Amino acid sequence: MNKLLEEYKVKVEAELNKFFDEKLKTTSNLDKDANEMVTLLKDFTLRGGKRIRGALFYYGYRLFSDENLDEVIKASMCFELIQSSLLIHDDIIDQDIMRRNGDTMHISYEKYHKANNLSEDRFRFGSNMAILAGDLCVYFANELLADLKLKNNLKAIKELNRLIPWVIYGQLLDILAELRSTNFDAIMKINRLKTSTYTIEGPLRVGAILGGATEKDLDKLSKFAIPLGKAFQIQDDILGLYGDENKLGKPIGSDLKEGKRNILITKSIELASEENKQLLNSFIGKKDISEADINSARKIIHDCGALKFTEDLALYFVNDAKKGLKDIDGNNESLKFIEWLSDYIVKRKD
Amino acid sequence: MNKLLEEYKVKVEAELNKFFDEKLKTTSNLDKDANEMVTLLKDFTLRGGKRIRGALFYYGYRLFSDENLDEVIKASMCFELIQSSLLIHDDIIDQDIMRRNGDTMHISYEKYHKANNLSEDRFRFGSNMAILAGDLCVYFANELLADLKLKNNLKAIKELNRLIPWVIYGQLLDILAELRSTNFDAIMKINRLKTSTYTIEGPLRVGAILGGATEKDLDKLSKFAIPLGKAFQIQDDILGLYGDENKLGKPIGSDLKEGKRNILITKSIELASEENKQLLNSFIGKKDISEADINSARKIIHDCGALKFTEDLALYFVNDAKKGLKDIDGNNESLKFIEWLSDYIVKRKD
Repeated sequence: MNKLLEEYKVKVEAELNKFFDEKLKTTSNLDKDANEMVTLLKDFTLRGGKRIRGALFYYGYRLFSDENLDEVIKASMCFELIQSSLLIHDDIIDQDIMRRNGDTMHISYEKYHKANNLSEDRFRFGSNMAILAGDLCVYFANELLADLKLKNNLKAIKELNRLIPWVIYGQLLDILAELRSTNFDAIMKINRLKTSTYTIEGPLRVGAILGGATEKDLDKLSKFAIPLGKAFQIQDDILGLYGDENKLGKPIGSDLKEGKRNILITKSIELASEENKQLLNSFIGKKDISEADINSARKIIHDCGALKFTEDLALYFVNDAKKGLKDIDGNNESLKFIEWLSDYIVKRKD
Repeated sequence: MNKLLEEYKVKVEAELNKFFDEKLKTTSNLDKDANEMVTLLKDFTLRGGKRIRGALFYYGYRLFSDENLDEVIKASMCFELIQSSLLIHDDIIDQDIMRRNGDTMHISYEKYHKANNLSEDRFRFGSNMAILAGDLCVYFANELLADLKLKNNLKAIKELNRLIPWVIYGQLLDILAELRSTNFDAIMKINRLKTSTYTIEGPLRVGAILGGATEKDLDKLSKFAIPLGKAFQIQDDILGLYGDENKLGKPIGSDLKEGKRNILITKSIELASEENKQLLNSFIGKKDISEADINSARKIIHDCGALKFTEDLALYFVNDAKKGLKDIDGNNESLKFIEWLSDYIVKRKD
């Protein structure tokens, strides 16, 4: 089954390559700086990414149709493009410096500012250019979908643009959660909005709509997708603290550093001894957090049982999702792939 | 003819009201902070704006069709929504504090931060929330268009999302122009991208496509729209220095303050005496520019002939556009409205 994901990845990346090369051709006649931005977007989009969203889109379609599959591969790029947009803006918001084993977009432009000896504030320049780069990808995604010869693409465009605002609302709550006290329910709500919607539910639904799914089919897909999205986010939180920086493509412990109280951290505050709780609290939002601090946090979270609790919670959600999967009528190979992906989501290391 | 613009304005604002009220209903069940963002977007979108873009969209459609006009009013909102998105992000980029006689979006969120006694950096918070608010509007615009019962809306979506990236490229060049030396041609290129595309050409073309225009019709519309867009931007530059702050809804002299070398400023540097040139140069990018400075700049620009040159240039472009208008075949009332609007663009005071 991993082979199916790999096969899809190769195909969609070839299409993304072609897509950006087309854009590069258009902008090369226009201006070298516009061309440079598209080059950076191409690199950012292509240098990493598991393509889980695109694959779910593709197999969401295949659940209900086997026509025009080449065209559907192209259509599935829309989630990878919007992923780029969301990540670029998210990285500005979180002031992250590393993504997919490379510079975040605003850091790329800070370096550009330095290399070209430009005047004025380098940080503002980086952030401003990255705002524009992120904006571009949303228009790219919509143009792409509108251009396809697929009979349900109007419905798909509607659903895509109806769903992504929920991600934005999730990001908004995420920003606010860093600044206020929060709790388990509030975090799960953010996960639901920020992750489930666009990592699992969105791609599956939009793909399925393109394939001709009925409202009833879509309801079943959502029922499956929502718990799986929660599991995905929890696994992300775990990897963010216990994963391998190289595999992950971004620094370990950034949630702690940025003061993001994810499930892992919130649960530890609940379970740890008073002394460890105080220590952990001192790491939350600590801008100059050291490796020793992160190791110490890891130990506290492990020893108090919060890690085990969180891992179990992810498994619980995956099993909940898989129960929902049984109700879905559709192409068998696609169902098997989606089932495999459900397990992969909590087993993955990147 | 002004009455036609007024009539359109009333209709589209009623639709915008309804549109945002729907969004408010959805978000009120979700979360009060998401709801607050939609409230701010509603206010931002509705508290001002001449609705020139929406009107051009509407009359671009009516050139070629007279069916489903109520639905077309709704469709024309897409340009007003994208206008909100572009303005919100542009205001972050330029660090502007005032727009449409009120706070820019990031300032609204800085105030929210203060009022709610939130922790961390207030300015970053304002800018981050405004990034998200601007993002939302692009999804809103596309969802809206995809939801309409109009036969060419897929083509219209494609064209809209093909065109707006040119505006983004224009903004990118605008940022860079502030940081490097620039010249007349470079400024006209930015105007072409940043203004013509989305103020005149975009709305007319997307509306016309919806109305069933042929490629030939669209070429003619572009030929008309491009010079008119240039005239629009030049008039904007003039009003930005010689206009009335209340009518304009934003501070006078902001281009000078932000170091934006528009046509007016570039031409003055060319024409003014060495002494005045130095004085004018000292105002460009002066963060604490005073009213006396702005008055002094006004006098220099007027006395050296740059103001007259620029006013004449705007008129030249309007006349050029109007010549192109003669070639367009379409509904007569619409043609008359578009002709009236061409003159209005250089006569307007806001």
